[in-house]
Order: sequence, then structure tokens, then C-alpha cells
Amino acid sequence: MDNQKVQIFDTTLRDGEQVPGCKLNTAQKLVIARRLDELGVDVIEAGFPISSPGDFNSVEAIAKVVENATVCALTRAVKEDIDVAAKALQYAKKPRIHTGIGTSDSHIKYKFNASRDEIINRAAEAISYAKTFVDDVEFYAEDAGRTDNEFLAYVCSEAIKAGATVLNIPDTTGYCLPDEYGAKIKYLKENVIGIEKAILSCHCHNDLGLATANSIAGVINGARQIECTINGIGERAGNTALEEVVMILRQHPTLGLDTNINSKLLYDTSRMVSESMGMFVQPNKAIVGANAFAHSSGIHQDGVIKNRETYEIMNPHDVGVTESAIVLTARSGRAALAYRAKKIGYELTKLQLDIVYLEFLKYADKKKEVIDGDVHQIIKDSNISILV
Amino acid sequence: MDNQKVQIFDTTLRDGEQVPGCKLNTAQKLVIARRLDELGVDVIEAGFPISSPGDFNSVEAIAKVVENATVCALTRAVKEDIDVAAKALQYAKKPRIHTGIGTSDSHIKYKFNASRDEIINRAAEAISYAKTFVDDVEFYAEDAGRTDNEFLAYVCSEAIKAGATVLNIPDTTGYCLPDEYGAKIKYLKENVIGIEKAILSCHCHNDLGLATANSIAGVINGARQIECTINGIGERAGNTALEEVVMILRQHPTLGLDTNINSKLLYDTSRMVSESMGMFVQPNKAIVGANAFAHSSGIHQDGVIKNRETYEIMNPHDVGVTESAIVLTARSGRAALAYRAKKIGYELTKLQLDIVYLEFLKYADKKKEVIDGDVHQIIKDSNISILV
Repeated sequence: MDNQKVQIFDTTLRDGEQVPGCKLNTAQKLVIARRLDELGVDVIEAGFPISSPGDFNSVEAIAKVVENATVCALTRAVKEDIDVAAKALQYAKKPRIHTGIGTSDSHIKYKFNASRDEIINRAAEAISYAKTFVDDVEFYAEDAGRTDNEFLAYVCSEAIKAGATVLNIPDTTGYCLPDEYGAKIKYLKENVIGIEKAILSCHCHNDLGLATANSIAGVINGARQIECTINGIGERAGNTALEEVVMILRQHPTLGLDTNINSKLLYDTSRMVSESMGMFVQPNKAIVGANAFAHSSGIHQDGVIKNRETYEIMNPHDVGVTESAIVLTARSGRAALAYRAKKIGYELTKLQLDIVYLEFLKYADKKKEVIDGDVHQIIKDSNISILV
Repeated sequence: MDNQKVQIFDTTLRDGEQVPGCKLNTAQKLVIARRLDELGVDVIEAGFPISSPGDFNSVEAIAKVVENATVCALTRAVKEDIDVAAKALQYAKKPRIHTGIGTSDSHIKYKFNASRDEIINRAAEAISYAKTFVDDVEFYAEDAGRTDNEFLAYVCSEAIKAGATVLNIPDTTGYCLPDEYGAKIKYLKENVIGIEKAILSCHCHNDLGLATANSIAGVINGARQIECTINGIGERAGNTALEEVVMILRQHPTLGLDTNINSKLLYDTSRMVSESMGMFVQPNKAIVGANAFAHSSGIHQDGVIKNRETYEIMNPHDVGVTESAIVLTARSGRAALAYRAKKIGYELTKLQLDIVYLEFLKYADKKKEVIDGDVHQIIKDSNISILV
């Protein structure tokens, strides 16, 4: 395996989809799974099969259609969970079982009412059992972010001994600072026995807005997998945003790390997931927000016209953003509308713009998204005489 | 000044408001300015007075009403800009002029077609001139993120010599990694002549999703001001989100840093800005998103019921989130609706929930936000017999 390659483990269909309001049916999940495969993710976490018959069916259906990526199913460190996950994955070309247990004092005490030794035994048993079904077993040490490093290294060593191929170190509550999370990964890289046989994985939550930075600190310090979702959706404030970590590694070649992602599909994939789950992406979202590449102030526009590089560190085309890909919404201003109208051939006077803008707002309120074809119609409906 | 205090410089009304579609009139800006003052921000950047007569009037009006915060106005390193800014600030209790110029090779060459010496002269002249109007002059080294550290330290030393009280080190294009930005601040803290007379300020953009992490790296390495906006709005992918840096410092007391912010006003201020500018906050936004404190998966809910601490690092009340503060929208799922209905006295069966949910969606599509009073009405309109 190329040491410089960071595996992208997408959990849009598991950690993302479990959020209320984001629920998808199997057909919708298959569309997204196929797209994730095309995007080039290394692992698709397809669901948590024991959680419901619907989820089981979805994981099984996804396992059947995915061509390239590993298909992964989540379980607790419980035999029945693993049985059901193995069954759901039986048709996968590359199946992975993802099993684990909480390792922080808080989780051990309040969730499991157990001792540290019992937790390690349960973990090792689950991994060994999962290995009877598949070769590729990922272990998660839930709440690793708040687990002391020495104990965590011991748990990880035992997990590798039991056969784990990947060690997931989740900052479950989104509490870690980047230096702290990076130091944790470094400690594990240096102290886990047998670490050369496994990959360390970052699974960071965004409660304090640090998921992306923590994941990057993780791979700088030796992790080689990032667990993430399209648009950063997921529990509470969500997970690491796939599009952000991919573009950080690509725009910072001196880190010597990269992914297999075809970045030109990022924007379109973002919209597909957003529309399918009904989860809005805010205009100021990095990489995929409607304003991410919009230069608005006069000072910036002036700079960009002189030389794009003055204010732009990425070529929008590299993430699949073309002028016409940007969607106008009821939140768009007159400037954006005038700019788009001009692109498709209408030079509007200030007065004309005022009239067209009112018509645009009525339209945008109903249709939510306005594309070039709609702009033609809106201008026609505005009943203004226009020189095209 | 308390060395452990990080100043919060809010630029919602300048860097935030300049985004198309976010434009506010003076009355709307006054409402937000008063709220920012109440929230406890140290500096309110009120606008860029030379940019338009409307902006001038807004800055002047804000300067008149703000009680506690410093009121700041932006200028280029141009005499006329400074004249106009000084005039707009004449009624401020604590006025600050924010002037500066691009210092990266890219900006010097393409924007100014000048030499490094000319840039330093222009900067020093602008600062000296601003000092004839106000004591408090902040200097920005635009594109400092891509300016080499040695030259940047030289510029900053000259800026202090000319009278600058604050040195703003913007990562204008949002390119820096946290380690890199932190190292830049550390270098300046150690190499700028006269640095004990000025405060270093972080102004980070979010193009790669790292604005918050970069700002935190900055204050860990010696900066004592963060420039940020409510909800992280601003040019392109926006600025550092005020609510995120405030809560990171508060939840990590071992850093020994804090702000003057009354965090209980964060959620309400977020909504005020979002509604007034029409800029959506995505549900998975850290701290202020509708889902930020929503535990959705069965595993998490189970943990939280046993002990909140298993999955929660912040008390929602500390940021002003109460159960009833969370807004239901057309993006909310059945679970959220059932939960809220139960809170206000309705125990819905699955069948009843299906009917009420349909009615809810119709309502939510029209009204955008659904509060408790609306839920009563929706259940009434659903024409189901219900046991309250």
C-alpha cells in the first residue's frame, strides 16, 4: 500500500443518514452509493444492519452494486450484530465489518457499567468473531478522544492481536483540539504493539467546528484513513466534511498525502446528497457552498480581475463548480442575478433589474432553485422590453 | 490588560454584510450592533465608509448608539478613505480606524504593481495619518497568510513604529494550515520590534474549512484578538465563526484564555443575524445549527439518557439553546415533530403522527419556521382525535 495515500471512508449513508429528517429509502441509497463509488471513496459505510430490516436490506443491496469500494457495516461488540452484518455483506466484493465499544471512563462506567478488562475482552471477542466472516475488520474505540492514551494504546494492541486491520480513533463528542488529537494519533503510532499491521483512522465530530482540522492533524501524525461525510452531515453538528479534507490534501502537496477522490465530482455529489436528504448546505460552506467561489466586495473583484491568484487558492473547476453550476436561490442578491442574466445574454438596466428581481423572488420562493433556463422565463414573465 | 483575555472583533456588519444578498439597511444594522454590544464583543467593525454614502451613514449611526464596544471602520491605505472613516466615527465613544495594504508578493505585484519598500511607506503613512484622528489604529497586512514571515515581521515593526495598536494578520485566501498559521503568529511575536506595544489579531477565512482551527492556533501562539462573524458568514466560504471560537476557549479552560462574550446570547444572536440577512444556517452547523444538540441515533440517545456526559461536552443552555428554542422546519423529521408534540402534551400514535406530519410539512413549507404555538394549530388542523 502506498504510504502517501489517505483512505477515504465515507459514512454519509450511516452516520449521515441516521439523523432525523435525512432518512432515505433503499433506492435513494443505491443512487448515492453508486456515486460514492464513482467519486473514488475507498470505503462506503452502508449502514447498521441490526438496527432495522430496512437498513439490513439497504446494506445488502449496496453490497451487491458497489464495484470498487470496500462496503462496510457497523455493529456493536455483540455477536448478533455481527451475524446480521456478515449476512448483509455476503454479496460484497470487498466486505468490512466495523465493530467496537466505548473505551473512555465515562462510557465504561455509565454506558456499560463494566471494568476496563471486561471492555477489552468484549472488544477482542467481537473482533475474533467478525474475523470468522471477513478478513477486513475495523475496530472503533468509541469516545477515544476522551480515553487516556496509555489505556487506548493497550486496547488497540489487543484489537490488532485479535485481528483488527483498521483502528478507528473517534473523537465521538467533538471535544479535541487539533494538537491534542494529533498527539493522540502520534502516541498510538509509537506505542501500539503491532501497529505496522493496521491502519489508524480518524473519525472526528464537529461540535466545536474542529472536525476537519482534527482529521488533518491525524493524518499528519500517521493516520491513513479519514471517516467523513458529504457536506459534513451527521450526528449533532456532524462529521468531518469529505470535500474539505480532500481539497486540503490536494492544495497542500508539501504534506505528501493524497486521496483517490475525483474532485471534479465533489460539487455535484454535494448537491445530490443535499437534495436527496433535504439537508441544506449553507451558502458560506467551504468548497461546496453557493458562495464558496463568489467574490463579492469591490476590492476583491478588482483583485481577481487583475489576477485570479490574488484571492483564489483553488480553481473552482477542480471541484466541479462552473459558473452555471452555482444555483440562484431566493437568498441570492440583485448582483448575482444581474451577473447570471448577463452571462446568458441580457444586459439589464438598474430599473429593469429591479423589476426582474421582484419576479425572480416570486419564482425562487416557489422553485427553491433557479437555473439558466428559468432566468430566460423570468425575464420573459417580467414584461420588460430588453435588448438581448 | 488581562493577558488571558482574547478580544473578540466582530465583522458581521462589514465582512459579513458585503456578501450579495446580505445587504442590510441602517435600521437593521443598528439592531444587530446593539445586540453585538450586549453580547460583549470588544470591537464592532461597522463598515467601510468610503464604499458608499449608505455605508457611511450606517457607520455613523452605529458609532452613536454603541455603549461599550470599540467601533471600527475599514479603509484602504488611502488618505481619502481615512478622512471619510474618521468623519463617520466622530461620535464613537471608542473609535478605531482599520487601515492596511496587501503584503504578499502576489498582491504587491498584481494589485499594486509596486515594490516592497513602497508598500511599507504607504502603510506607515496611512497609519500616521489615521493617528491624527484616533489613538486606536489597527493595521492589516492583507494576504499575510501567503506573505513570507521575515518581510511580514518587518512590515509589522514599521507599522508599530508608525503607531499601530493592533496588527491584523489575515489569511485572506483561507489557505493556511493551523500549524503554519500558529507558527506565523509565533514568529511575529518573537521577531516584531516593539510587539509589546501592540496586539496581534487573527483574521482567518474558511475556504478549506480551517478558519476556526487557524484562529485558535493563533491565540495559542500569542495573538490576543480574533476577527470573526456570527454564523461564520463573509466573503466566499466566510470567516471564523464567533460562536465556535468563543465556545472552544470556554470548553478548554486549560488553554488559560477566555473572552468577554455572554455565551447565553449566542443562539438568539445567530438567529437574529440569519433572519435579518436571509443567510441560512445549516442544521449541522457547530454550536448554533438546529441539530447541534440533537441526539438522533438510538445508541447515542441511550447513552444520553443514562448520563448526558457520555455524548455531550457542552450544556445547550450555556449557548442559549433550550428545547423550545430549536426550530422545526420542513427539513425536520417525524422524530423531531413527535418529540416536540410530546413536550407540549400530545402523545401521537404512529398513524396519527403520519397524518400530522403531512399537515406539518404543508405548514412548514409556507412558514419556514414552526414554533410550539404552530404545533398546536397543526394538530388541530389535522382533524385527528387526540388524547392530550
